[in-house]
Amino acid sequence: MTIVPILDDAAASPEARAVFDDIRKTRNTDFVNNFWRALAHDPVLLRRTWESVKEVMAPGALDPLVKEMIYVAVSATNNCEYCIRSHTASARAKGMTDEMLMELIAVVGMANETNRLVNGLQVPVDEAFK
Amino acid sequence: MTIVPILDDAAASPEARAVFDDIRKTRNTDFVNNFWRALAHDPVLLRRTWESVKEVMAPGALDPLVKEMIYVAVSATNNCEYCIRSHTASARAKGMTDEMLMELIAVVGMANETNRLVNGLQVPVDEAFK
Amino acid sequence: MTIVPILDDAAASPEARAVFDDIRKTRNTDFVNNFWRALAHDPVLLRRTWESVKEVMAPGALDPLVKEMIYVAVSATNNCEYCIRSHTASARAKGMTDEMLMELIAVVGMANETNRLVNGLQVPVDEAFK
Amino acid sequence: MTIVPILDDAAASPEARAVFDDIRKTRNTDFVNNFWRALAHDPVLLRRTWESVKEVMAPGALDPLVKEMIYVAVSATNNCEYCIRSHTASARAKGMTDEMLMELIAVVGMANETNRLVNGLQVPVDEAFK
Amino acid sequence: MTIVPILDDAAASPEARAVFDDIRKTRNTDFVNNFWRALAHDPVLLRRTWESVKEVMAPGALDPLVKEMIYVAVSATNNCEYCIRSHTASARAKGMTDEMLMELIAVVGMANETNRLVNGLQVPVDEAFK
Amino acid sequence: MTIVPILDDAAASPEARAVFDDIRKTRNTDFVNNFWRALAHDPVLLRRTWESVKEVMAPGALDPLVKEMIYVAVSATNNCEYCIRSHTASARAKGMTDEMLMELIAVVGMANETNRLVNGLQVPVDEAFK
Repeated sequence: MTIVPILDDAAASPEARAVFDDIRKTRNTDFVNNFWRALAHDPVLLRRTWESVKEVMAPGALDPLVKEMIYVAVSATNNCEYCIRSHTASARAKGMTDEMLMELIAVVGMANETNRLVNGLQVPVDEAFK
Repeated sequence: MTIVPILDDAAASPEARAVFDDIRKTRNTDFVNNFWRALAHDPVLLRRTWESVKEVMAPGALDPLVKEMIYVAVSATNNCEYCIRSHTASARAKGMTDEMLMELIAVVGMANETNRLVNGLQVPVDEAFK
Repeated sequence: MTIVPILDDAAASPEARAVFDDIRKTRNTDFVNNFWRALAHDPVLLRRTWESVKEVMAPGALDPLVKEMIYVAVSATNNCEYCIRSHTASARAKGMTDEMLMELIAVVGMANETNRLVNGLQVPVDEAFK
Repeated sequence: MTIVPILDDAAASPEARAVFDDIRKTRNTDFVNNFWRALAHDPVLLRRTWESVKEVMAPGALDPLVKEMIYVAVSATNNCEYCIRSHTASARAKGMTDEMLMELIAVVGMANETNRLVNGLQVPVDEAFK
Repeated sequence: MTIVPILDDAAASPEARAVFDDIRKTRNTDFVNNFWRALAHDPVLLRRTWESVKEVMAPGALDPLVKEMIYVAVSATNNCEYCIRSHTASARAKGMTDEMLMELIAVVGMANETNRLVNGLQVPVDEAFK
Repeated sequence: MTIVPILDDAAASPEARAVFDDIRKTRNTDFVNNFWRALAHDPVLLRRTWESVKEVMAPGALDPLVKEMIYVAVSATNNCEYCIRSHTASARAKGMTDEMLMELIAVVGMANETNRLVNGLQVPVDEAFK
């Protein structure tokens, strides 16, 4: 159970359904996943989040696959299961292989380790990095 | 001040100096940054960390620039200033432009936001993602 | 399964049962939730935690509903499912509507995002804020 | 130093300056703080973040002071100094007293503690909360 | 600057000064560190926190040095500079050597790494651990 | 389901099986837990992680039980269920009693609380701790 019910199309408001429709059209699929159906309780939040994600994850100076892998890296650091699973699926759909995934996770692990070695010893930033 | 002193070459043990030398040779520079000089108090930890970082960050299924950007993404999520500054510098040395950096940070921000929208509403994982 | 068994009244020590009784009396209910029944393995920890929560969450300069919403905000940031569910229930019992919940979660999401935009760019604190 | 320079009005692009102007108008002040001046390197990110913050923090089912206190609670949990200082200043401008601040911080501390008591013992969610 | 001023003895309330006195007596020193002087703005919070810390950190099934090292481990994970420095000082006063510190930090780093390897791959808990 | 399948011995590569064999020999058991079987998709990551854990958790200036408890403390702070359960099991196998566990969790809770009291008030580090 979620904290608020997952809204199917019939239960969603017209404003929320309009966002669902844009999700379907943009992604070229009928499937609207639970994240959007939970946000639908607040159509303003739903619209803002969808428009923001669409804008942030679009091709730009970074390609969409790199962006999806960064999304997975943050989600693994924060241990958000939903986000890890959904963005891993997206990354795979954009070409991420198992080998790439394992290297991604290895970097995430190493960064989380050295972040704490630095914290624990309170290493001062070198002048060269300022 | 660090929790332990930063060791210059004269103060480091022969085992630690040998790692410093490999850092210099691998990176083709005389500069050994404070992170390694703090770890030098425990030459076994220093060697293991250096060998691990060298292995993880080497070219593989992911290119080194993507790996550096993932490192920055994790470090920004955890707010490790030292790691953000040193790995941003490395990413720039490998070709990251300001435009790429801004997009990277935008993805990190968005992932941290949606991770908490998911948490707060305890959104169940869709069958399609399992 | 928990790491330690959940203690029912019969299994709890007299010191733990005395805390259970105070919880029942203070909340005017027979229900003692699992959190307290797990802590009951250490009656000193149980008592201290209960007395602290009672003191912190009491009406003061902030009203109890605001305090419950702050509790939810922290728990969503840390992704503690138990705490999100139990304090959302408490907040609802104190008058939080679905609309208020959605706005609360939206603020939590936004704060987690901008916290990382600030980290990633290492924005210096303005003199005006010092 | 930030990872990217703080842009004054002269250095900012016309798109960024237009956002600065809206910030000034909305807040009825000449002051544009460093956060926005760092984001100005990416005018799209700047605009989206500003529009989102404006929308999220506006009066709604929750009053703006409660929203600012939730922002502080998240920022204290994540240890984002910039965000703690700027949103504490905003909360004070909206009426938060020292007494309210101390109670807010007390709740944040308690929530962070019990989140980990729950984690450490892996307390199962009571049926009553599902 | 803190968010609230650090209170010296003259500025503190009688209730806060009474806690300062107990800190001095318990620790057998005249020194009262800034943490307590900041909490002194809320004498109830100050007293509760001090009594809790005294109780938790006292000798028990775990010896006080082990408890201090656990405190450092958590603080390094969360990157709380004040807490790392003050509890490292306490641990050293109780006998922690540099060699012990380096091993402690190495474990903290490794745990933070493997926590994320587990998250990233969503490894299911073995039956043997349930 | 994991993000990648759990590999049994037949599905693992010879390089991975060699690590499984060393795990069995070192721990004097036939049991190889899921963590290693998930990492086995990347034999280099598997070997590095196993060799690192073996080195870090070995007896040294700190005894192995203290190291296991530090591991639990970090994992409870980060809410990694797998790591909490597996390292609690290891700590118990090395002699941790329920009483020790409860004290450990109490310290973890208190440290997470005071870390945020310090953050929220931005308490400056005392000269005595520098």
